[in-house]
Amino acid sequence: MRRPIKTRSHKAGLPPGTAVHIGARHTEATRIRVMRYSAEAFEEREIQSVDELAAMRGQGVLWLHVTGVHDVEFIARLGDAFGLHPLVREDIANTEQRPKLEDYGEYVYVVVKLLRDGGGAPGVRAEQISLILGRDFVLSFEEAEPSVFEAIRDRVRQARGFVRAEGADYLVYSLLDAVVDNYFIVLERFGERIEALQEELIARGRRNSHRAELALHGLRREMVLLRRNVWPLREVIGTLERGGSALFQRETWVYLRDVYDHVIHMIDTLESFHEILTYTLDIYLLNATNRLNEIIKVLTVIATLFIPPTLIASIYGMNFRYMPELAWIWGYPLALVLMLVVAIGMLIFFRRKRWF
Amino acid sequence: MRRPIKTRSHKAGLPPGTAVHIGARHTEATRIRVMRYSAEAFEEREIQSVDELAAMRGQGVLWLHVTGVHDVEFIARLGDAFGLHPLVREDIANTEQRPKLEDYGEYVYVVVKLLRDGGGAPGVRAEQISLILGRDFVLSFEEAEPSVFEAIRDRVRQARGFVRAEGADYLVYSLLDAVVDNYFIVLERFGERIEALQEELIARGRRNSHRAELALHGLRREMVLLRRNVWPLREVIGTLERGGSALFQRETWVYLRDVYDHVIHMIDTLESFHEILTYTLDIYLLNATNRLNEIIKVLTVIATLFIPPTLIASIYGMNFRYMPELAWIWGYPLALVLMLVVAIGMLIFFRRKRWF
Amino acid sequence: MRRPIKTRSHKAGLPPGTAVHIGARHTEATRIRVMRYSAEAFEEREIQSVDELAAMRGQGVLWLHVTGVHDVEFIARLGDAFGLHPLVREDIANTEQRPKLEDYGEYVYVVVKLLRDGGGAPGVRAEQISLILGRDFVLSFEEAEPSVFEAIRDRVRQARGFVRAEGADYLVYSLLDAVVDNYFIVLERFGERIEALQEELIARGRRNSHRAELALHGLRREMVLLRRNVWPLREVIGTLERGGSALFQRETWVYLRDVYDHVIHMIDTLESFHEILTYTLDIYLLNATNRLNEIIKVLTVIATLFIPPTLIASIYGMNFRYMPELAWIWGYPLALVLMLVVAIGMLIFFRRKRWF
Amino acid sequence: MRRPIKTRSHKAGLPPGTAVHIGARHTEATRIRVMRYSAEAFEEREIQSVDELAAMRGQGVLWLHVTGVHDVEFIARLGDAFGLHPLVREDIANTEQRPKLEDYGEYVYVVVKLLRDGGGAPGVRAEQISLILGRDFVLSFEEAEPSVFEAIRDRVRQARGFVRAEGADYLVYSLLDAVVDNYFIVLERFGERIEALQEELIARGRRNSHRAELALHGLRREMVLLRRNVWPLREVIGTLERGGSALFQRETWVYLRDVYDHVIHMIDTLESFHEILTYTLDIYLLNATNRLNEIIKVLTVIATLFIPPTLIASIYGMNFRYMPELAWIWGYPLALVLMLVVAIGMLIFFRRKRWF
Amino acid sequence: MRRPIKTRSHKAGLPPGTAVHIGARHTEATRIRVMRYSAEAFEEREIQSVDELAAMRGQGVLWLHVTGVHDVEFIARLGDAFGLHPLVREDIANTEQRPKLEDYGEYVYVVVKLLRDGGGAPGVRAEQISLILGRDFVLSFEEAEPSVFEAIRDRVRQARGFVRAEGADYLVYSLLDAVVDNYFIVLERFGERIEALQEELIARGRRNSHRAELALHGLRREMVLLRRNVWPLREVIGTLERGGSALFQRETWVYLRDVYDHVIHMIDTLESFHEILTYTLDIYLLNATNRLNEIIKVLTVIATLFIPPTLIASIYGMNFRYMPELAWIWGYPLALVLMLVVAIGMLIFFRRKRWF
Repeated sequence: MRRPIKTRSHKAGLPPGTAVHIGARHTEATRIRVMRYSAEAFEEREIQSVDELAAMRGQGVLWLHVTGVHDVEFIARLGDAFGLHPLVREDIANTEQRPKLEDYGEYVYVVVKLLRDGGGAPGVRAEQISLILGRDFVLSFEEAEPSVFEAIRDRVRQARGFVRAEGADYLVYSLLDAVVDNYFIVLERFGERIEALQEELIARGRRNSHRAELALHGLRREMVLLRRNVWPLREVIGTLERGGSALFQRETWVYLRDVYDHVIHMIDTLESFHEILTYTLDIYLLNATNRLNEIIKVLTVIATLFIPPTLIASIYGMNFRYMPELAWIWGYPLALVLMLVVAIGMLIFFRRKRWF
Repeated sequence: MRRPIKTRSHKAGLPPGTAVHIGARHTEATRIRVMRYSAEAFEEREIQSVDELAAMRGQGVLWLHVTGVHDVEFIARLGDAFGLHPLVREDIANTEQRPKLEDYGEYVYVVVKLLRDGGGAPGVRAEQISLILGRDFVLSFEEAEPSVFEAIRDRVRQARGFVRAEGADYLVYSLLDAVVDNYFIVLERFGERIEALQEELIARGRRNSHRAELALHGLRREMVLLRRNVWPLREVIGTLERGGSALFQRETWVYLRDVYDHVIHMIDTLESFHEILTYTLDIYLLNATNRLNEIIKVLTVIATLFIPPTLIASIYGMNFRYMPELAWIWGYPLALVLMLVVAIGMLIFFRRKRWF
Repeated sequence: MRRPIKTRSHKAGLPPGTAVHIGARHTEATRIRVMRYSAEAFEEREIQSVDELAAMRGQGVLWLHVTGVHDVEFIARLGDAFGLHPLVREDIANTEQRPKLEDYGEYVYVVVKLLRDGGGAPGVRAEQISLILGRDFVLSFEEAEPSVFEAIRDRVRQARGFVRAEGADYLVYSLLDAVVDNYFIVLERFGERIEALQEELIARGRRNSHRAELALHGLRREMVLLRRNVWPLREVIGTLERGGSALFQRETWVYLRDVYDHVIHMIDTLESFHEILTYTLDIYLLNATNRLNEIIKVLTVIATLFIPPTLIASIYGMNFRYMPELAWIWGYPLALVLMLVVAIGMLIFFRRKRWF
Repeated sequence: MRRPIKTRSHKAGLPPGTAVHIGARHTEATRIRVMRYSAEAFEEREIQSVDELAAMRGQGVLWLHVTGVHDVEFIARLGDAFGLHPLVREDIANTEQRPKLEDYGEYVYVVVKLLRDGGGAPGVRAEQISLILGRDFVLSFEEAEPSVFEAIRDRVRQARGFVRAEGADYLVYSLLDAVVDNYFIVLERFGERIEALQEELIARGRRNSHRAELALHGLRREMVLLRRNVWPLREVIGTLERGGSALFQRETWVYLRDVYDHVIHMIDTLESFHEILTYTLDIYLLNATNRLNEIIKVLTVIATLFIPPTLIASIYGMNFRYMPELAWIWGYPLALVLMLVVAIGMLIFFRRKRWF
Repeated sequence: MRRPIKTRSHKAGLPPGTAVHIGARHTEATRIRVMRYSAEAFEEREIQSVDELAAMRGQGVLWLHVTGVHDVEFIARLGDAFGLHPLVREDIANTEQRPKLEDYGEYVYVVVKLLRDGGGAPGVRAEQISLILGRDFVLSFEEAEPSVFEAIRDRVRQARGFVRAEGADYLVYSLLDAVVDNYFIVLERFGERIEALQEELIARGRRNSHRAELALHGLRREMVLLRRNVWPLREVIGTLERGGSALFQRETWVYLRDVYDHVIHMIDTLESFHEILTYTLDIYLLNATNRLNEIIKVLTVIATLFIPPTLIASIYGMNFRYMPELAWIWGYPLALVLMLVVAIGMLIFFRRKRWF
């Protein structure tokens, strides 16, 4: 669970609109990359302060991408430059947020979560992406490198696809699409882990291991995280797709609808995984129950085979003076045969009653 | 689970509108069958390239049916010929999609899933059907042979039913109806398998087998697949039935309502199956619990019958010098009788207390 | 489950509007009873063919009631006579349908399910009732005798209640009311069976029998059937009650609202039964668990009472040459006392630790 | 369950609008109390027949309260006097109804359920209250004494609160408020019983008693009854609060909203109780499981402590001629020590492996 | 559960609008703090009676904050001074209420719950906050000290943030924001406790302690309390945020939307916690099952290792006259070897069958 609201509480008592960095710090330095492009022109630069932007106010779409959101000072100055509401500045720095869409008229503010697979270790990490769409500019904020938008930057640079020919809204669509496509990678790996767990539980002679149990717990825990980050996307993208913001042109709607379809597909997949996880737990429990039954069956077989003959042996170990059998020549072998008969007889009897 | 999003992730990073074949490849060659029909005229042909279509632009409804969607090149040219949006071209080739309906004004794009029973082996396979309805043409895409639309082709050829007398929208209705009817075959076989499993679990002396368990797991897994493919149909057909597209004439609505009723019926059936599966699991668990109780009862009966007499025998096996009973003539038989009395007494005692 | 979609699949591939009898055949001959009535006049007849209807086209409401829906030929001719849509003809003969309401403008088509208690045997059978309301006629179709509408026929004959004074819509309301009232009989008997099962499980010394288990499974299975047939009624009657069809006069709405209330009441009852069944299963499981605990307690008591004394007896059964106790005069009785003390001591010890 | 629809089925077959008393009969005689009041005037009387009402047709609000609804004859005549619809007359006598609100234009008919605690015995009884609000009259029907409205009668008599100054709608609000306040008494006692059960299950050394189990079953059964009667109130009062009837003046809405808030609060409480009951069952089950583990641990300790030494004793009880240990002087004590060492060693071994 | 409706029932029978203090009394004296402020001016006072207010009727926003709501007399006089509806006066004193929003036109009445962590002891206490917003005044009621609004008072005094520059509606927003921020502190600590419990259950050799069980029960109980108090907030703040009251200016909406987002985030977190608690219970149960399996495995190993050799020893302890083995010189060691072989053989046999 990684204490989802851990640092949120530090903010209680501060006046609203106070930008404070909340959440883990995933990068050291803040990096600011600016692009200005139109169908014909293209310019790219990496800047250190907001003041350098003045030089780039030209024609076309301005895309300013920030990596690292802990520099509250910088965000404040950026907010001044683009006229952002104090609450938006606050929210950019606060990485413990729910995906949401806020329309401020002049610009639209979108928060989504980027899921990053933990590389070697299992487990998923959620980072926050903030997007601000104005009439001719796009601001995007990412918590850490490597950037999930690198492929889009390449497309802009090389004028591949439609991105250079379209407006700022198409760029925001492209960014959202990249984030959503990223989810599929995470979901796919998640699905593979479920599948591997199931196969292990079903196939291998129906035995549960502590490792399988930990894997099951881990998957359920991640499921909670995934659902929390994926479900709200449905509302965010759905509102955009239904033309909820005047900053998106009609032609872009059809593309947003496509992203929306992907989100719905993702939710479907996630809910399928949820059902599958639920019944994987059932399999685990069934295995444990079957196992218990088997062990107890062993115990019962032992008891049935050996306890009755032990009684017979104990009887002939009694020290009574008058026990005629003891003097018989065939006494000993007969006793052994009797033991065998009793043991086998009980086995047969229980078998008949279908108790084994 | 067949890795439901396995290949989707390969697409991350490509610009939108790039058609890439995603999913398993179910057929070798792409096969293109074209029909043009009206109430009076009928023409049928199998073509190799889109160019041959030019010769068929006449009167009536044009139905172009494609088997195999992996030939991205062909789909691109078909898209040019019929003016399809890049996203539609992309979606036709991507067989990992959710059933959906998209109205592009000039044409409507419908994606549904066809469920194919695995023949001899249990298990259901989902294939994707794409349908595009224009003013006077219908494009349909199927992943593999045998075509589920063969009966409709026959009806068109022989002018049976109303299909020749009606427009392109009636043809799309017929295709949807064929797909939905196909679901009933799958559902019916699914129902039979549940029933067979239940009968086995309830009837056969209440014993669980590993086979029954695997059958149960398999049914639950398929249930997830079925629900994922059937539920979205409700929205797709429901939108059409409520007159959601101008390309469908009012007279066709009543037919679409009929398909919609079938879908609702199917969902009802599916949810019933879901409930039945849930309580089948309960039966399985109850059986396991009952079984455990029975085995432990055996163990307890053994212990109760034999352990107390063993104590008595052990007592008379002690080597004390002064044990008067050992010298009695009736000592031995009395000891045996005592054992019997103790064993029977305990049985009676526990019976009275209703412990057996 | 009675294979709810068993025969549906036989229809796949037929053109829509083809009337085929689907479902079990509950009666041999088709029986057609016709009534024509107004506030003043009344005429009743049993006819053999649709042609005989011509003679009855007079004043007032015409009520044609058909028992048995397997005669596809007859339904086709009736459809011609009353101008029914091909899909309606198809649906009348197809008894595997979901309750539904279809407004064709000129007439309304209503499908509901009649539940028949299995008489002596437990279990409920669902039959299909089709009702068609035109401006001045009512067609009703029932699968088998005895007719659930007999009481209404009597009321029409004897001009009891308001039925003769009202129009065709009031007759349809009366028929729906009769079907819904019939549900209450089934629900009541269902409730009694649940209650009987509960009392058996709770009262009788908390023991589960295989019979109780089968009863529980049977009730859950029927619950699925009941819910499938009752829930859709809500929508059907609800639409009528809210004035969803122009063929029902405003004065009849208040009566339809009354039926609607009954349906809602029924659903409430059904859902209560569902909850009660769920916790009945819990009772059953609790019983099984308690039972297991008790049996194992017996085993443990036996082990605790007899195994330690057996050890003592075995010790004094050892053949060491130098065992001073063996030579004591009080050795034997002391050994017996020791056994007793150990057994009782352990019992007291475990009691203290609250292990029994 | 008290057979919730027991007598409903007796009505099947009767024409609608036939008043028949359905349900248990809670009182012997029908008692009719009439009040007529305005801000200034007040008159109270107990009448025997509807005819006596003629004398009271004056100024102000007429409140006629009937205790006992089994006198169908009287209800019929009252219905004539106040122009009630046949279905309303039928519903007043039928006490097996769901809370509902019916607006007949001239008057509003409201059915709610009164919950009465069973006094000494646990368990709740539901009685039916029918309220009819006309322009200047209120009819109220209660099944039995003591009347829940006595406090309101006192308020009217003594002109306390606003009731005398307001219209008939305020009186109906007051009656509804009294019924809802009554629920809180029932809910409070229900809550106390849950709490007592929980404390017993958690605190007392984690042991389940049959009494606790019966209490748990009883609470779940009552929960079903409570939910059935409380949930529909939400809709009834909610419709009134949103101005759903023209007979309620705007000034009364704010009071109805207050009742509505109480109902919502009640539902919240009820659902909390439902969750708490659910986890109380979990506690019960956990206790049973823990108990089982403990008993089996006892068994295992016994077996571990005594079975291995018994083997050793049995070995030295063997009658082989050449067993050197038997002749040793220290043989016997060494054997005893060996037994002790083995028993303690096994205990230590299992402890190390954390098996105890 | 703390008897959520305990004292509510004492009110049954009183006329509506009667203010009675309901709930626990958290403070001794009522304390009344008044502030009047505008962008320029600021005045603060602590008053003893409502009469002292007359002196403060000047310019700007009047904020009257009351700590302690049991002084019904004072509330009544305050109600007269500000023209509050009798039901509002009643609700302020009744601390057993559900969060709600009531618009009386001239003023808005908001009830929310403040959650206070129990300091050292685990467990959460809910207190009631009543807020009344008029055109230029705000009344706030808190049950006890320390006040959660202290930080806001400081902000007003020192003119920090926007509060002095904005109207009364912004003050109410600030108060709501403070209450909601307070929830995050509670939620955070709740999350930490869940996490600690999980770690204990998963990590420490998979053993359940009674302490962990009590912690689990406690968390589930608090979860019920948290949900009851948090969920209704969504509706309350949501209505305000959508402009549901004319007393809130458009500029304040964006701030209310921010609070609303926090509430939604909180609900998300709460539901995640709910899921996590559910699977924590599963972990607990799995542990108990695994534990049982392990104990029984020990028992079975003991039985398998020692019971068969005991039989052999008992056999050679029999007193038959003719038992040739007894006279063998190697008889004794051979018997011991036989015992060893049997024990090891059975272990190997069961291992092969994968029973251990």
